[in-house]
Amino acid sequence: MITSASNSRIRNIQQLNTKGKARREQGLFVAEGLKMFQEAPREQIAEVYVSESFADEHGDNLRGLPWEMVEDRLFTSICDTKTPQGILCLLRRFSYKAEDILGGDSPCVLLLEDIQDPGNLGTIFRAGEGAGISGIWLSKGCVDVYNPKTIRSTMGSVYRVPFVYGESLEEAAGMLRERGIPLYAAHLKGTAFYDQEDYASGCAFLIGNEGNGLTPEAAALADRYIRIPMEGRLESLNAGVAASLLAYEAYRQRRHKKTLQDGRKLLE
Amino acid sequence: MITSASNSRIRNIQQLNTKGKARREQGLFVAEGLKMFQEAPREQIAEVYVSESFADEHGDNLRGLPWEMVEDRLFTSICDTKTPQGILCLLRRFSYKAEDILGGDSPCVLLLEDIQDPGNLGTIFRAGEGAGISGIWLSKGCVDVYNPKTIRSTMGSVYRVPFVYGESLEEAAGMLRERGIPLYAAHLKGTAFYDQEDYASGCAFLIGNEGNGLTPEAAALADRYIRIPMEGRLESLNAGVAASLLAYEAYRQRRHKKTLQDGRKLLE
Repeated sequence: MITSASNSRIRNIQQLNTKGKARREQGLFVAEGLKMFQEAPREQIAEVYVSESFADEHGDNLRGLPWEMVEDRLFTSICDTKTPQGILCLLRRFSYKAEDILGGDSPCVLLLEDIQDPGNLGTIFRAGEGAGISGIWLSKGCVDVYNPKTIRSTMGSVYRVPFVYGESLEEAAGMLRERGIPLYAAHLKGTAFYDQEDYASGCAFLIGNEGNGLTPEAAALADRYIRIPMEGRLESLNAGVAASLLAYEAYRQRRHKKTLQDGRKLLE
Repeated sequence: MITSASNSRIRNIQQLNTKGKARREQGLFVAEGLKMFQEAPREQIAEVYVSESFADEHGDNLRGLPWEMVEDRLFTSICDTKTPQGILCLLRRFSYKAEDILGGDSPCVLLLEDIQDPGNLGTIFRAGEGAGISGIWLSKGCVDVYNPKTIRSTMGSVYRVPFVYGESLEEAAGMLRERGIPLYAAHLKGTAFYDQEDYASGCAFLIGNEGNGLTPEAAALADRYIRIPMEGRLESLNAGVAASLLAYEAYRQRRHKKTLQDGRKLLE
């Protein structure tokens, strides 16, 4: 059992929690809590740490895994949450290719420009998984997906939604164009409402930064401008909500198209 | 200019930032930042505090308002944000009646059960305003709307979306029933998807707590169960996202109905 705060592994986990550089250099990230442990792909798990109390109660479930016990109070110091659940794992980072995101039948891709809030990014992963998106392309200015707050707020979706930090959004736009996937931007210039376009054969949406929206350079990459209508005096929606509405509208259309296709097959 | 940390007004603002009890007893709340000041209904403004730097630059715009200057470093101590914008106001709390929320033509009401996260609650206000909801009914277990984090994340919507903390959700359900407004709950028991029901003549949605969803007691109040479909291995959506999807679907239907009605009038 690890009992000392100066233990090198304890110190390293603290670094991995707080420093993106440490996460990049070691190719690892921290996932806290029972749910995040249970849903973690087994082949990604590098190390598992549990509190003494957790080990007493659940140690049997950890057989076959490289786990280490940590004295209860010390365990709290390696957690980013205030009331830790007693289990934490170090996972190997994912490495997706652009093809993992853009390929497949009628892909739905989210392109994020400089999303800053870890909670928003987590929400986008979570709603994105729900809406069956094919993946997320992040600009270099986005917050780190491997930030413990983001990881937690994905509620496990980070394990299942492919994502890449691309060289540039221009590159993504070029790859979408090659594949004939239209790129939409929610923008004040938009005349069509977001539910008036046809996304069923594939689509990509540009989502801008929380405070400033899309830069003119990013907005210029879009093939079509759309508008999410807003009542009242609102200037914009939360970035996570906007992304969710767009992804779910595309999903709604794919579901309806499938229902129609299934119906036609029955008639044949 | 206020320069002392022991000034009673400074101490009071700190109390109003952190203590719901102080906010209730004084009938006041704190709204920080330029946007929250600019959009505040003038009749609600009790006091305005600005930093010395802010007053130097923008003092002219504050004419006619009861404002007070605070030494720059001290001003930071009365703010809940890390990088304050130099202006903060004390506002009188709102007092809406149930009728303000449930009345009107084809109302759309959100009933929130024990929403805990201030950011989620703020997001629900913001998306709710965008979707033109008629108001929000909060269970007593919800986080305080007047919490500075909630206020900030509403981005001003708290000034425009009516809300009440009701005695109980049963009471709300009863009032909806009297008015013939169907109450929907997003629930695993649901068979119809959320976009297969007709919300255009009025609707209300139950939204559950972030961690636990709706209690069985609250779910039992619903007239209809609906489902937000989810791909992947997701168990639920973020409460703010779920509320936004439902409110925007109801809004989409109201818009389409209006388009149809306008079209018919043209033909008459």
